[in-house]
Order: sequence, then C-alpha cells, then structure tokens
Amino acid sequence: MNSPPGDHTVPHMTGSEFRALAHRMADWIADYWERAESLPVRSVAKPGDIMAQLPVSAPENGEESWEAVFADLDRIILPGLTHWQHPNFYAYFPANASGPAVLGDFLASGLGVQGMLWATSPACTEVEQRMMDWMGKALGLPDRFHFRAGGSGGGVIAGTASESTLIAMLAARDRSRRHGGERLVAYASDQAHSSVIKAAMIAGLATSADDREGVRLIRTDDQHRMDTAALVETMRSDIAAGRRPFFVHATVGTTGVTAVDDVSAAADAVARTTTGTGAAGGVWLHVDAAHAGAACVCPEFRWMLRGMERADSFCFNPHKWLLTNFDCGCLWVADRGAVTESLSITPEYLKNAASDTGGVVDYRDWHIPLGRRFRALKLWFVMRHYGLQGLRAYIRSHIALAAEFESLVRADARFEVASPRTMNLVVFRLRDGDQATRRLMDRVNDSGKAYLTHTVMPRGGPLVLRLAVGGVRTQRRHVRETWELISRLAGS
Amino acid sequence: MNSPPGDHTVPHMTGSEFRALAHRMADWIADYWERAESLPVRSVAKPGDIMAQLPVSAPENGEESWEAVFADLDRIILPGLTHWQHPNFYAYFPANASGPAVLGDFLASGLGVQGMLWATSPACTEVEQRMMDWMGKALGLPDRFHFRAGGSGGGVIAGTASESTLIAMLAARDRSRRHGGERLVAYASDQAHSSVIKAAMIAGLATSADDREGVRLIRTDDQHRMDTAALVETMRSDIAAGRRPFFVHATVGTTGVTAVDDVSAAADAVARTTTGTGAAGGVWLHVDAAHAGAACVCPEFRWMLRGMERADSFCFNPHKWLLTNFDCGCLWVADRGAVTESLSITPEYLKNAASDTGGVVDYRDWHIPLGRRFRALKLWFVMRHYGLQGLRAYIRSHIALAAEFESLVRADARFEVASPRTMNLVVFRLRDGDQATRRLMDRVNDSGKAYLTHTVMPRGGPLVLRLAVGGVRTQRRHVRETWELISRLAGS
Repeated sequence: MNSPPGDHTVPHMTGSEFRALAHRMADWIADYWERAESLPVRSVAKPGDIMAQLPVSAPENGEESWEAVFADLDRIILPGLTHWQHPNFYAYFPANASGPAVLGDFLASGLGVQGMLWATSPACTEVEQRMMDWMGKALGLPDRFHFRAGGSGGGVIAGTASESTLIAMLAARDRSRRHGGERLVAYASDQAHSSVIKAAMIAGLATSADDREGVRLIRTDDQHRMDTAALVETMRSDIAAGRRPFFVHATVGTTGVTAVDDVSAAADAVARTTTGTGAAGGVWLHVDAAHAGAACVCPEFRWMLRGMERADSFCFNPHKWLLTNFDCGCLWVADRGAVTESLSITPEYLKNAASDTGGVVDYRDWHIPLGRRFRALKLWFVMRHYGLQGLRAYIRSHIALAAEFESLVRADARFEVASPRTMNLVVFRLRDGDQATRRLMDRVNDSGKAYLTHTVMPRGGPLVLRLAVGGVRTQRRHVRETWELISRLAGS
Repeated sequence: MNSPPGDHTVPHMTGSEFRALAHRMADWIADYWERAESLPVRSVAKPGDIMAQLPVSAPENGEESWEAVFADLDRIILPGLTHWQHPNFYAYFPANASGPAVLGDFLASGLGVQGMLWATSPACTEVEQRMMDWMGKALGLPDRFHFRAGGSGGGVIAGTASESTLIAMLAARDRSRRHGGERLVAYASDQAHSSVIKAAMIAGLATSADDREGVRLIRTDDQHRMDTAALVETMRSDIAAGRRPFFVHATVGTTGVTAVDDVSAAADAVARTTTGTGAAGGVWLHVDAAHAGAACVCPEFRWMLRGMERADSFCFNPHKWLLTNFDCGCLWVADRGAVTESLSITPEYLKNAASDTGGVVDYRDWHIPLGRRFRALKLWFVMRHYGLQGLRAYIRSHIALAAEFESLVRADARFEVASPRTMNLVVFRLRDGDQATRRLMDRVNDSGKAYLTHTVMPRGGPLVLRLAVGGVRTQRRHVRETWELISRLAGS
C-alpha cells in the first residue's frame, strides 16, 4: 500500500481490444442465430453438468487471451442452453430477441446511464415516456393511459409482468387503505397467472400460495374466461362478510390456453358491486395481457381491449412476442399519482431542482428498483426498424402459422384441439389420453428437433400440449416440419 | 387476411445487416467511451427538450436506413444524457460499464434465453450459482453463504439492492409470521438507504414513507454508524409493548457518507435482545453493502464483514463499483429455504421433472420476476478478464485517488473534510457555510467539467459535497484537474 496514489496496474480492456472483441461477439451472435436451428432445442444437460466444468474459484490473474472464453461458449455454455431463439421453440411463450432490439440493448449497456430520476439522464426518461405513448397508441389503448393526453395517465417499462401486476396491486392496496379499507381481497380467474398470487404474498395480503382469503380465484366459463357473474357474487359475499374488494385482475390471454377475459364485463362487475356498497376508494381493475397484448398492434385483435377505458392499468411484455428482448415489460396506469404515492420516498441525496418543480417524471417512483437502465432504446429501435406495418405483419404471420398447424391437427383423427385457438397458441392432445399425450411430448422434446410444453385443463381436465408460434426466426417450413415430426412420433 | 399462411412480409434484419450494424454500434460505443471526456458531464437538457424532438407516434413504415438512427443518437440522445461513464462523474455512486461486462451483456441479449427454471436453460442457472460462489469467495463471505459448502446457503443475481433488501425482508417477515409473529418491526440506522423503508411499504409493514411503527430508524454515533446500544433499547421497548422485532438492516457503507455499521455489534444486539424474549423465529440480520461491498475483494477491507457469520443475508451491487454494468445486484442468504418459502408458487405449466427432484435451483423462486436474463455471463467475463488481482488493483486505485483528493482538501484552509473517509468517497464543504458550498457545487456542475452531488449531515448538520471516485476511466489526472476546478471556483 506504499505505491504512489493511483498507481495500480488495472488490466482494463483498451478501446481497440473492445472493438475487436465486440465485432467478434456480434459475429458469434449472428452465427448463433443462424446455426441455432441445427442444435437440440432443449438442453440435454443433467443437473450439475455445467457447474462441474467451471473452476471452483475465480482466477487470481486475468485472462491472457479471450480465445479461451470463446471456446468455453461453445464447449460449456451452448450444450447447457435451451435455445429460446431456435425456430422450433414452441414452449411456454416466446422470448423474442430481434436484431434491432439487441442493438438497442447493446447501446444501453455501453451508455451505462442511470434513469432513476429525470435529472440523472433526461433522455432516459423522456424517450421512455414517448415510447410508452408510441406503444400505447400502437395497441389502441384509450387516451387516459397516455402522457400526451395531458391527464394523469402514463406508462413505464417495469421489467416483467410479475412486477407490473405487483405495482398495480400495491397502488390499489394503498388507495383502498387511504379510504379506510381493511381485510382487502383481490380477485382473478382460476386461469390467471401465478404472479397475481405472488404479488398478494409480497404485498402481505396472502399468507401463502394457498391462502384464498386475500386472493379469490374466480371460476371460468367453458371458454376459460373469468365468469363475471361469479365475480359479482363473490365480491358481494365478501362485502357482506366485512371484507373489502380492492383489486380485480382480468387476464387477456391466459398462460394455459390464451383465453381472454371480458374486460368490459369485468368493469361492469366492478361497477355493479361497489356502487353504494361502501367500497370507497373503488376497486382497481388491472388488465394483464402479458403475452397476447402484442396482438393488439393489429386492429382485428382490439376487441380484446373493449372496456379498457374503465380499467385502471394494463400491462404487456414486448419481450415475449413483440421482437424486443428481455427485459421489457410495459405498464400503463390511468392515475400515475396512485403509483407514486405507494412507491415514492425521497432522501436528501436524491433531491434535485427538476424533481422539486414536480414537472418531470422520476421513474424510480414507479417501480421497485431505484437504478434503471435505458431500456426504451430497444423499443425505439424496434418500432423504427419494423414500423407498425412490420409489427402487424409479424403478428399476423405467426397467427396464420398457428391456424395452419391447428388445421393439420384437426385433420388428423388421432388428435383433438382441446381449446379454441384465439391467437398463436394451439392447445391439443391425443385422443388416446394423458399418458399417450405426455409420452408424445417427451418424444418430441427428446428428439431435439422441437420443444413444446404442457398444461392441464381447468377442473381436473386432461393434460394438453401447448404449441406457441412466436419465434423471430420461425417460418412456415418449421411449423410444417414440426407437425410432421409430431405426427410421426404419435404412432398409429 | 386472405394471404397464404405465413406469407406476411416481415422486414426482419438479415444476418449480414445485423453484423454490419452491430460492428458499427460497437465502434460507436468505443468512440463514446473515448469522447465522453469532452462532453458536459451533466446533461444541459431542460424538461421536455428531448421529447419535443421525437415524433408523437411510431412510424407506419420501417426505416429505409439506419443512418437516421445513428444521427439521432448524436443529435437527440447525447445532449439528453448525464454521462455516468465520464471520467469526471463523481456524483451519487458510480455505475460501472467495463468492456468485458458489456460484452457479456451483449451475449446475454443475443442468446435470449430465460433462466426462470433450471430446466429452461441449465447453464443460465448453474453459471450463476458458480459465479455467486466465485464472488462470495472473492469478498471473503463465510462458507454458510456458498453453494459449494453444501449447506442451505447460496446466492442470486437480484437486479438491485432495493430488490435484495425486499427479498430479505419478505423472507424474514414470513419466517417470523410462521412462528406467530404479529406487529412486526424492522430496524435500520437513520443513515440507511431509503430502500429499507420502501421495502417495508411494499411488504405491507409500513403504511407510508413516514410511518415509524413498522420501521424504526436507530440513531447513529459520531461516525454515523448505527448506535447498537440504542438498537437494543428500542427492540426491548418494542418487545415490552407487544411488538415483534423481525429484521435488522445493517449498512456497510451508507449512501450519504460511506459509514460502516458494526455488523458484529448488530449481531450481538440481536442475540442479546431476542434470547428468551419470545421473538421465536428469530430476527433476520441483513447486511446491505450495496456500494462498499466491492472493496471486500481487498483483504484490507474485510474488517467490514466481521460478524457476517451470524448474519442471515448480504447484498452488494457489482453494477456500482465492480466493473459490471447494470443490472447486477448480488444477494446471498444463509437459508435459501426461507426465501423460496416466501416466493415460490408452481402452476402446472411450470412443472418439470428436474424441479420435481428438488435437486436443482429454480431462481424464479428467489425474487420477484418470473423471467430472467443470463446476467451471470457478465460477472464471468469480468472476473476472467480482470482476475481477482485486477479487481483489487482497481479498487485500490480509486481509494488512493480519493485519499489524494482528501489530502488536497485538508491542505486548503477554505475547506474542511466533513466526515472521515472510509473508502473512495470524500465528503467535504466550504467553511463559509451551506450557501457557499451549494453555490460551489452548482458552479462545478454548471461548468460541465465535473459532476458531484450533495447530502445533508445527520441531525440537521451542514450541507456537504460528495465526491465518489469510482469511474472505469477515472485516472489521477482527472481527480487532480477536478480539484483544481473546485479550488478555482471556490474563490478566495
């Protein structure tokens, strides 16, 4: 420690080294996207396989060369990946990584700015505000959710839909409590995403994942949509028992089968139940369109948004099916004051002249983290590169492919479509039953040629396979080849 | 909608277009890092400046060329940024973006895998487990926080310290409640980060930022450390009043002045207070070293970790001062079961054979989001590129520069050092008082040559300036030039 001040040899990467390595990484990524198709979709790794190939400690000295790093990508990392960018990845929901988005993310990493306050990098906030307006308009969201309308609405990039739902629930919880609400109850359909229950657990409104006092799961109809008559009935019965409904979560595109709750009917249910019943502070209607919201860039899918003008918040994730790589979850609220009232706290070291005026948006007050990266860049790049017409063509191409796959399933007597297709997800099974269906799934996935996942239909229904068409590189030939594979492995 | 299936013209970027644009973006970033020094550190933008330059709607058609995009980066974005990568950025705490980390982030974007479950990409989970062990060992954390120890401990990349603290608090809350805890109380020093109060608000334990029933802020001593005698006294008084202490938050390196709470004394306080007092389920001791934790790569700073073997969790953010760009917040816990018990919920569509065995880590149960990107890659690249010796040299270089700056302040009769320097943060003021000190800060920041922020010392103390030396590109000449600037602008 007797060396002169600052005279410590730090092996920083030079500018020319960075350029060369970043070019190489760009090429590696482009190659990966091209060769992904030749790799087994689902990783064949066994637990511990990857860890066993990594030293137990960090190296004392830095790398003499990056050759070893690139070699390890092929040797250790690739076999340990399930390739979400493989054109035959049909599992869960897609996780799009497009060229323009990856460029935007790369730029955000390089700029390395923090957008916690307007003042800490005004462009990081203002581009995000504008992109949320662009995207809100692209989806056809009502004016009340847009900054440009000059009212109390606006949007934020909030990471994931889990976080968006939590933020909406916190704002609803606190608004209700400010009006004296106690024994609060949230409502969602029995097909809603697990993040509703997780949010209630985090917010202290459910004591466990099985606690149904704080979160009521409303039964669904024969199309797997929330039964709004049952919603009314349950809310009324809770009010009669001294509980306070505070949050209704409508799902536009369930994870299981892409069922679409009727937002307008949910809004009616809220209005009919809470008028004159003493639920002052109102019930917050949150609409979760995490995956399916992307389809609203096409006018023919905006029927899903009927009733949105009476909702309090809406979320969807461009990082699923809209070409923008993770993480990019969008949340719009009609009353941004309700959100910031729940999440704002200002210590001295964050005080600044711009925030004091109240005339700027400080996004740290809209979500859990304080720090935030410049995620709006990737939305900007995606919308400029594709244009709205390109986004619509993209969504329509997948829906057409899903329709084609569905027709192939319907034409084969061994199979049945287990749930009506609303968009890009085909839910199907073998008539031979659960065991045969699961065996088929395992065979398909074990083949390495395609990857799909399962779910179980509501009320003890059968096990079904889910094929979600939504990959950036998924073309017609992939879907047709996958059907041929499935058909062959199904046996006779 | 009569076009043949899948026959929608989507203007995807081709592989060769991506290669060319990504090379160009890499060069743009390298250029930016080189020329950042010539730009005004703090953005000169006024509210609305950036938004006014962006169209109100997304384009209908995609870009004919990316020339316009790159031109807009220089024309619209750069003037709207505060340059956190400028070598004379000394405000808040640093937000490091190093070459190796940006390469790792770029790769994560390109791979586009999801690590919510082990099964959804085993390498994404196992590399992260190993990196958390590497980093935990690099810092000198006790074995109980390491996976390799084979016990119940382990680490996770959790976004930000705000999220880490929330996760720890939720695990503590639920553990206490399982033991019958009610009227729970959390404790932190009056210098702790605002995220403690925010976490309590989210968890439903504080009704507002000013609610001191659920979060007690313990007074600090003359070195701004939590007064553990006062902590004991407050906990005892709460227990006597029927409240239940459940969470003690010790800060290793406060945001204001980098004061270091005595973790060992905090652990003693917890032990002395809760033994035999009925606080069954115990009190969770969380250690928040968000910024200063980075210094523990150097053995000479591990005195800060004394007592860690009795703590329940520890967090620090490599995305501040350890060369790994945002977001990369690390959280270690001694009992990972307590975390997953709070945050786990498994719907049918996420069930899989590997998770059913219980033999793998499913990181979605360790934090708020479900989706997660492959953030461990950047930690891997940073540790391999720099090696532990390189990381130590980096930390030591900044601390030496801060010491040099401090000695320049001390040698000038107009100034005083307002708080003892523990690491890389110098806290100082003009003897002429608050008004003169604030005027000096504004002059420095308005000059565009350097950027620093202020805080107010505890108990109505004076306004002070904070100069945090921690930039990737900050060299001795920058710190000396900044002192000359400050000295000149301070007047006589």
